[in-house]
Amino acid sequence: MDELEIDAVAEVELDDPVLVEGLPGVGHVGSLAVEHLLEELEGDSTLVRRIYSHEFPPQVSVEDGVSELTCAKLHAVTVPDGRDLLLLSGDHQAQTNEGHYVLTDAFLDIAEEFGASEVYALGGVPTGELIDEYAVVGAVSDESMLEALEDVGVEFREDEPAGGIVGVSGLMLGLGERRGFEAACLMGETSGYLVDPKSARAVLEVLAERLGFDLEYESLDERADEMEDVIGKIQEMEQQQQMDVPTDDDLRYIG
Amino acid sequence: MDELEIDAVAEVELDDPVLVEGLPGVGHVGSLAVEHLLEELEGDSTLVRRIYSHEFPPQVSVEDGVSELTCAKLHAVTVPDGRDLLLLSGDHQAQTNEGHYVLTDAFLDIAEEFGASEVYALGGVPTGELIDEYAVVGAVSDESMLEALEDVGVEFREDEPAGGIVGVSGLMLGLGERRGFEAACLMGETSGYLVDPKSARAVLEVLAERLGFDLEYESLDERADEMEDVIGKIQEMEQQQQMDVPTDDDLRYIG
Amino acid sequence: MDELEIDAVAEVELDDPVLVEGLPGVGHVGSLAVEHLLEELEGDSTLVRRIYSHEFPPQVSVEDGVSELTCAKLHAVTVPDGRDLLLLSGDHQAQTNEGHYVLTDAFLDIAEEFGASEVYALGGVPTGELIDEYAVVGAVSDESMLEALEDVGVEFREDEPAGGIVGVSGLMLGLGERRGFEAACLMGETSGYLVDPKSARAVLEVLAERLGFDLEYESLDERADEMEDVIGKIQEMEQQQQMDVPTDDDLRYIG
Amino acid sequence: MDELEIDAVAEVELDDPVLVEGLPGVGHVGSLAVEHLLEELEGDSTLVRRIYSHEFPPQVSVEDGVSELTCAKLHAVTVPDGRDLLLLSGDHQAQTNEGHYVLTDAFLDIAEEFGASEVYALGGVPTGELIDEYAVVGAVSDESMLEALEDVGVEFREDEPAGGIVGVSGLMLGLGERRGFEAACLMGETSGYLVDPKSARAVLEVLAERLGFDLEYESLDERADEMEDVIGKIQEMEQQQQMDVPTDDDLRYIG
Repeated sequence: MDELEIDAVAEVELDDPVLVEGLPGVGHVGSLAVEHLLEELEGDSTLVRRIYSHEFPPQVSVEDGVSELTCAKLHAVTVPDGRDLLLLSGDHQAQTNEGHYVLTDAFLDIAEEFGASEVYALGGVPTGELIDEYAVVGAVSDESMLEALEDVGVEFREDEPAGGIVGVSGLMLGLGERRGFEAACLMGETSGYLVDPKSARAVLEVLAERLGFDLEYESLDERADEMEDVIGKIQEMEQQQQMDVPTDDDLRYIG
Repeated sequence: MDELEIDAVAEVELDDPVLVEGLPGVGHVGSLAVEHLLEELEGDSTLVRRIYSHEFPPQVSVEDGVSELTCAKLHAVTVPDGRDLLLLSGDHQAQTNEGHYVLTDAFLDIAEEFGASEVYALGGVPTGELIDEYAVVGAVSDESMLEALEDVGVEFREDEPAGGIVGVSGLMLGLGERRGFEAACLMGETSGYLVDPKSARAVLEVLAERLGFDLEYESLDERADEMEDVIGKIQEMEQQQQMDVPTDDDLRYIG
Repeated sequence: MDELEIDAVAEVELDDPVLVEGLPGVGHVGSLAVEHLLEELEGDSTLVRRIYSHEFPPQVSVEDGVSELTCAKLHAVTVPDGRDLLLLSGDHQAQTNEGHYVLTDAFLDIAEEFGASEVYALGGVPTGELIDEYAVVGAVSDESMLEALEDVGVEFREDEPAGGIVGVSGLMLGLGERRGFEAACLMGETSGYLVDPKSARAVLEVLAERLGFDLEYESLDERADEMEDVIGKIQEMEQQQQMDVPTDDDLRYIG
Repeated sequence: MDELEIDAVAEVELDDPVLVEGLPGVGHVGSLAVEHLLEELEGDSTLVRRIYSHEFPPQVSVEDGVSELTCAKLHAVTVPDGRDLLLLSGDHQAQTNEGHYVLTDAFLDIAEEFGASEVYALGGVPTGELIDEYAVVGAVSDESMLEALEDVGVEFREDEPAGGIVGVSGLMLGLGERRGFEAACLMGETSGYLVDPKSARAVLEVLAERLGFDLEYESLDERADEMEDVIGKIQEMEQQQQMDVPTDDDLRYIG
């Protein structure tokens, strides 16, 4: 296998599509969001590309005994009453710094091939504490995009996210801008400790309003309820432990 | 030395051979199994290739004062009443993600050269506890291979192994599938804490039945008995320690 | 994006300019110093080059919601009564050993293009304790440079810095020397625990005297006062903790 | 600078020289030994090559304020009554696995250029405890070399060193053998905790007898005496600690 191999699974004609990226990251917000889109828009979506790379972990996933080599997948979606979509999903990000550059450029190459000039990178921004109100924090590659996103409720803050944005979502903005894309990153607030379907819903609501499509959230809400149960149990355990000496290990990443 | 150098030590004509990979991994199950095959089939086997690579650790092994540069070795075996075999063994896997891709492709290149189109990757799957009944868990590159392996006792489970399969065994499936090989991974259950000859035997019994050859297990059973003694001593030590505060470090990898 | 991309933002004619490097390092001394130069000499400075590289972290910074891809920046400064300057600044150093070599060579290529043959790398040298008198320790690529720097107060010590100089500042000396540059590294003493504007001022005073330009330090002194407050609070906390069992974590890097 | 740059500092005609490698490693035995050779044979030695590489750390050393870029150095020595020598020294080994392969090949290229076909890699083998009698353990690239080295007191042991030999010394054997060199590794026993001049002397005594040259050891013995003082103080501290609670290090990895 070459360092990068792109399988053209199908060809679909799209009209000015929008690339939506949801690879794994903080709270799995981006991947939950894009997986939910794939589920809800299944009838209108086609797998068009598989992207294999030496930059992905040397790994297969296994389901019912059958293996699948790690890859990223691009689905084309013809949305009935809205903009066409290109949905980028997968189980892994690149494993090296250089790999993030190489793969993001490859993703943007394919998006260009399908006529896309606009990108939304979906993700989470960690707050370090459990959240009641799920704000969506934004970052854009160009000032001109601020207003339209503020209109649908995205918050732009003076110095946030403080450490910048790392990985494929960051480079969708950075490399996207250098290549003439209009790129935005939508980050749902999330504790950072747990897989967070509620944060994914907050991000999707903003995206749906911006791009003008309708979405059901039932299955995402069910996953959120399951996580609520997990959180409840963790909180219970924490209360019991508060009489003991607390340790650094009390809160672990469950992602 | 080039990044990859393959020494052609000998040429052997094989009839539709099967590649069997046993590089080091969990519980050393795969390497124990292939080493046992090499021992038992010694009269019929020929070292045909040595594979050197910058991806292996920069290291020599030393035996009786004489050094040998780290490499993987491929033996050709003409099995009297069964399928011919290509046995892949060695002391190390690749040391980087990219190296796993590069080396697995090199191994498959050589297998192809000898006419192989079927691969068995042998390994262990860690259970986290000591084992009585050694099941063999399987994964295949194509659904069509499930039945024949189920018939010889391989178990295919809904979501196992949970984290997928990493390294050369995983890529034998993933890259093998992309190149048109029929590839299966046979994973003996093992605690993951100890070198496990019993797990290796369980894997070999399945393989021997699938490929139709006979095998003695005496020397492997002897190694298993030695490990039993080690386990017995560890358990004794654990019982003594249970009056103290137990720690995560109680069971360590002795590999 | 290629592994290395250099955007030519503007062209400026300079007269025998001096390259001054201030990328992040110990106590952020070098980057504070060059940022202060950029602030004070703003009226006379022009951004001439942006340097992008796969060796930088795959990251954007975000200010008021607008992203900027990680890069190093080179400003040309025409100093009224002194030597012209090329100021190298940025948020990151290279992330790999090889990257340091590749990027430092790229920086020197550009400096050469603008006619520079002299380099000052600014940084900090950690002492491990809070400092009253800020000495500036030096290292030069050629013995012939020692005297002129000693004349402006730079200290050259027998075996310091003990571990040598690592990263871009070290290579400005090492690669600079191999390419025929006269290169010096000016390192302000600093505790190593805190961002240190006082150390940056000490380095700038030496540089200004060496190159013959005037500089105001008001804004740098203000940052120093803010840090004094931080240090005061830390010392207070330490005194309170001294009745408890002290731990390794008492002093943390706040950079 | 290219990935690898070799400066030809001088040319010297040698008669069937022996390459002796002493880059840093366990107990600094190899580098102490080669540095001592350089000191004692100074009158007969010439610096012939400097080897620079991206595989070395991006670093300069500083002495009396003057920097020197990290490199390996090769000295040619015309030994009055013995074999000519090529002495390889430096402050660092390669920093990556691949770098060890690339640099060792480069070293052997140069050795070949000077007509060498025999290599001695000097180093230490850690025993984990303080040592009274300093044995020298050997490994050779070819069985035919065993006898001559046993005759000068080198010990060849069944399974030692257990983990093989890693880094440039290991590859001098492994790559050397593949290129037709006769290569031996001489490893002085050493605790592994301390810089060990006594172990370096033991290695040099064997080498001197094998190659037929005379050597004074006064300066090395002085360094050994200094280390004795350090060891004395450590033992004192240990005795005081033995009344305290046992530590995590009491139980060690058994692998």
